[in-house]
Amino acid sequence: MKLVRFGEKGNEKPGVLDNQGNIRSLEGHLDDIDGCSIAAGAFDRIAGLDMDSLPVIEGARLGPCVGNIGKILCIGLNYSDHAAEAGMEVPREPVLFTKATSAINGPNDDVLLPRGSVKTDWECELAVVIGKHAKYVREEEALDYVAGYCILNDVSERAYQIESTGQWVKGKSCDTFAPIGPWLVTKDEIPDPQNLSMWLEVNGKRYQEGTTETMVFGVRHLISYLSRFMSLQPGDVISTGTPPGVGMGQNPPVYLKAGDEMVLGIQGLGVQRQKVIAE
Amino acid sequence: MKLVRFGEKGNEKPGVLDNQGNIRSLEGHLDDIDGCSIAAGAFDRIAGLDMDSLPVIEGARLGPCVGNIGKILCIGLNYSDHAAEAGMEVPREPVLFTKATSAINGPNDDVLLPRGSVKTDWECELAVVIGKHAKYVREEEALDYVAGYCILNDVSERAYQIESTGQWVKGKSCDTFAPIGPWLVTKDEIPDPQNLSMWLEVNGKRYQEGTTETMVFGVRHLISYLSRFMSLQPGDVISTGTPPGVGMGQNPPVYLKAGDEMVLGIQGLGVQRQKVIAE
Repeated sequence: MKLVRFGEKGNEKPGVLDNQGNIRSLEGHLDDIDGCSIAAGAFDRIAGLDMDSLPVIEGARLGPCVGNIGKILCIGLNYSDHAAEAGMEVPREPVLFTKATSAINGPNDDVLLPRGSVKTDWECELAVVIGKHAKYVREEEALDYVAGYCILNDVSERAYQIESTGQWVKGKSCDTFAPIGPWLVTKDEIPDPQNLSMWLEVNGKRYQEGTTETMVFGVRHLISYLSRFMSLQPGDVISTGTPPGVGMGQNPPVYLKAGDEMVLGIQGLGVQRQKVIAE
Repeated sequence: MKLVRFGEKGNEKPGVLDNQGNIRSLEGHLDDIDGCSIAAGAFDRIAGLDMDSLPVIEGARLGPCVGNIGKILCIGLNYSDHAAEAGMEVPREPVLFTKATSAINGPNDDVLLPRGSVKTDWECELAVVIGKHAKYVREEEALDYVAGYCILNDVSERAYQIESTGQWVKGKSCDTFAPIGPWLVTKDEIPDPQNLSMWLEVNGKRYQEGTTETMVFGVRHLISYLSRFMSLQPGDVISTGTPPGVGMGQNPPVYLKAGDEMVLGIQGLGVQRQKVIAE
């Protein structure tokens, strides 16, 4: 299933795509698509509905495909060729950083350049949505804790991230820097998360092209590893890193400016499209 | 006012301290003490209640004094003498890191040592609770955005934080590593947040003793600074750093072990007390 949240920002309603690609409303059947409802068996309930009886929604804005996300855990330098373009070594264990949940945005909402920003960059990433509480989970059973997958554009202000004092989170957490969606694709549709092609274009020029096959630490390992340090809760998001082709890696570097348009996609997970706007 | 949340973990009810130090229940008057209710004027509503008419609650567990916290922003090396004991320079601008909200704990709940942890440490900190949406806020008006203050013990696994790959968040986000409370003290009771004494003891030995007077970047500056990078939302918590006396700074270093007891306090904000338990 491909689940969506549609409607006004902050007041999104749950929906599901039918076989023709129409959004069907789940209002009245489900309060929201979030950790709470997923853990309570929302997917089974939706699968049992008669799709044709659900109203078709047209022209609605898409919100982030998961509501009420508790935390966004991000993995840095997780594609060996991206580590090379960033001038950094492939890490010996996963590099964890976070994005503030206040950065979450709909998949096609405008991305805001913070005032004074001159180094805002893109990162097309496979995001994993957790489906049940995970703590000290073994790699072999890690995928049992996954609800599904989606795209996350890990928008990053490189000056704030790297040239400022300390920790990356400062350049990763600006408002609108975490477009999530368009769909939460349930894991039955993605039998192998390590074999998905992915790409990102800015103003029609393809900058990123890769596949999740070249991740340094795969989804199973990341879930197991992170669950040693903290509980992963239903609705939490793990963004698994980006392949080569970010703006910082160009020669000379290329950064986003007002008026630019990003379009990005991952095989089976749909496409995001964002305009860049000065704040 | 001193606001509390009492009852079972995950199902806390709102309460308020009366002049005798009793907890009075606010059930029926308020759903919760959280960003939502604070932004909607909860403090005014509570102030208008007849305290004697509210039922006294005895013997209840205290939960974190704010519910549904969206993000915990922490400031590193924000006391010049703590930076010295950590062997690091005083930063030229605030060092931002985060704690996962899944680390949040009641003020007197047990602190769990993660499996294999040998370097778990303490940090008594003044935490600021945001009362209304803040973005690009000037320092002069920064305190207008504060709801109140509380204690946060920024429990930290130093090996995970520093010796592991990359970012500090890994050693800051373990479950139970963010005891918050006992009380959310409304800002009218804390006219000057830069003049509060603070201390922490382990097994009766005083390790930390300081005052918020020696912060490098004060509360006003931190709110203004952080609001340039991201929206601060009602219920968000800013933990403002710790004075000297952490375990890592002892010679030789001292770390927490199962059976230890931490007791910590900040002037006007009450006392926390945690037992350390192996996970």
